[in-house]
Amino acid sequence: MRKPNFSSGPATLPEEVLRRAQEAIWDLDGSGIGILEHSHRGKEFGRVLDGAERAVRDVGNIGVDYAVLFVTAGATQHFAMVPQNFLSPNETADYCHTGVWSGKAIEEARRCGTVHVACTSEPAFDHVPERCSWSASPRYVHYTSNETIYGTQWVAPPRAPAPLVCDASSDIFSRPLPLENHALIYAGAQKNLGPSGISLVIARKDFVESGRSDLSPLNQYRTYVAEKSMHNTPNTFGIFIIGETCRWILAQGGLAAIDERNRRKAAVLYDFLDHSKHWKPHAQRGSRSLMNVTFRADTKEREEAFVKAAEAAGLSGLKGHRSVGGMRASLYNAFPEAGVKRLVELLAEHDK
Amino acid sequence: MRKPNFSSGPATLPEEVLRRAQEAIWDLDGSGIGILEHSHRGKEFGRVLDGAERAVRDVGNIGVDYAVLFVTAGATQHFAMVPQNFLSPNETADYCHTGVWSGKAIEEARRCGTVHVACTSEPAFDHVPERCSWSASPRYVHYTSNETIYGTQWVAPPRAPAPLVCDASSDIFSRPLPLENHALIYAGAQKNLGPSGISLVIARKDFVESGRSDLSPLNQYRTYVAEKSMHNTPNTFGIFIIGETCRWILAQGGLAAIDERNRRKAAVLYDFLDHSKHWKPHAQRGSRSLMNVTFRADTKEREEAFVKAAEAAGLSGLKGHRSVGGMRASLYNAFPEAGVKRLVELLAEHDK
Repeated sequence: MRKPNFSSGPATLPEEVLRRAQEAIWDLDGSGIGILEHSHRGKEFGRVLDGAERAVRDVGNIGVDYAVLFVTAGATQHFAMVPQNFLSPNETADYCHTGVWSGKAIEEARRCGTVHVACTSEPAFDHVPERCSWSASPRYVHYTSNETIYGTQWVAPPRAPAPLVCDASSDIFSRPLPLENHALIYAGAQKNLGPSGISLVIARKDFVESGRSDLSPLNQYRTYVAEKSMHNTPNTFGIFIIGETCRWILAQGGLAAIDERNRRKAAVLYDFLDHSKHWKPHAQRGSRSLMNVTFRADTKEREEAFVKAAEAAGLSGLKGHRSVGGMRASLYNAFPEAGVKRLVELLAEHDK
Repeated sequence: MRKPNFSSGPATLPEEVLRRAQEAIWDLDGSGIGILEHSHRGKEFGRVLDGAERAVRDVGNIGVDYAVLFVTAGATQHFAMVPQNFLSPNETADYCHTGVWSGKAIEEARRCGTVHVACTSEPAFDHVPERCSWSASPRYVHYTSNETIYGTQWVAPPRAPAPLVCDASSDIFSRPLPLENHALIYAGAQKNLGPSGISLVIARKDFVESGRSDLSPLNQYRTYVAEKSMHNTPNTFGIFIIGETCRWILAQGGLAAIDERNRRKAAVLYDFLDHSKHWKPHAQRGSRSLMNVTFRADTKEREEAFVKAAEAAGLSGLKGHRSVGGMRASLYNAFPEAGVKRLVELLAEHDK
């Protein structure tokens, strides 16, 4: 039997998508050849790629001004690629610092140009800053829409005086996509989209064109736009799964319906925590992530006992990241509501 | 029914591996969670990673002086990473130029330092040069062990005065691995190892340590060695498949047995071509690839008629690359002997 999987990523995928993948690995749509084995230049994979792009555009309501790119890399590679493409030594980019991931992005940007930290929630990282202080004319403004480790999330994108660049790895397509003002959105696939080892990039074409053109082709976003993510052999299986997952989202009613379900799922857990005797959430109200709910007990003993009981009960992946400790329940799109209820029942037993 | 798939990559994988993948996508070894969904930091994936590394080492007979790395990238990324890591502006690297892929590797190396083309088989690229003229003290010598597009292959590595760096994408683990004198071997997985979007790197640890240390972490081979390919989330599914494929190779009797079978398979086709009236192989004797057999007919009409007949007969992926034209039959490890026989039978019908 499959277990409720609270892993922060790679994470639960829709069972319908897994069933499709099982079939396609042996034989893609009656072609007599599996999805792992099809030439990326053949017409069968051409259909997969076109279909995946179309599904991404449909889900995100993404118009022709934006390119949809599939990059063989995780978000960490984009921490470097974004400033390599768009930040020169004499320029400044503004970064919103809300946790571990923005910290890594800042580190990479500092290799290329000047970083102005426009806001920070250090050291507790338990909220998203309400006000930012922008630099005079930033090349772009970078923020992390959801902090996977600390469990905070921007309710709405920062109101910035420059094009927004967003690391949306852990909440992409979990709610309507706020494309306005965004120049580039990147997301590692392994939470809401598909397997690890591939990322989705949604980028305004004119912004991409404004980037450097003297880097290795694979390090320029421009190359992915010009060659439709096919400059070299892409992660064909990853693209297949992203397409299937997006079609699943559409079948669920699209992002509005997904958003509603995600709010309902997270509310069950936050409501319990807010009324609990011995447990409390890490993130402040107004900054709470609907994707990664982080929480702690009043004693280490209680946490340890709970972790043991959860394992025995078949609830997997609840231990928090080492940098924040405690518990973390990741409730991505495909995570079932029944799993949250089982978690809360078990927590209630450990709240006496 | 599954078709004989002559694609040059992504390419045929062993059916046993595909069956394993189908199971593991739903539930990895009874863990209750699929391989796409397991945390890369969990003990289940830890076992997958360790098992894959062990299988790679067993297959290639790779000792502790070498690191085995899984990189989320294709070979094209290594064209850039190798010189970025190992070639400074005041240094020279020697490159053996045997086709499209070495050409791309040379282009990337020229961004970093001086490239000396030690030998070339331009413009026909129908053989591997017999003699190379090395520079005074090259930092490394780069060669492409098998030219996927032109269908040539080095029988043995060049005898070079510097550490060898090899792009082995299209013949890795098709024959015993000539590790001696090699500093670094890289291979995109999508021919003999697994899916696209991941590459295997086998690198001497002291060579890796000699590389630059001021690049972004993900651009340094050192990072993959120090963090066991886990600096960021790796392509977990790709690693799983590579492990399974290597265990399949071991079950076939290892590289000696695989080599024998590959020789037998290619001989069936080359023998036909050598005795044919209207067809001939592109590569010269002594340089012929056992992985990618490229061949042409005496007229365009004959080729076109054959391509049509092959499609009708369910033989897939036989059209040659646009830069060389004609036909190409890729006969990687997992390609069945029966498929070659069917190809030769059909060719015979078009040789009258």
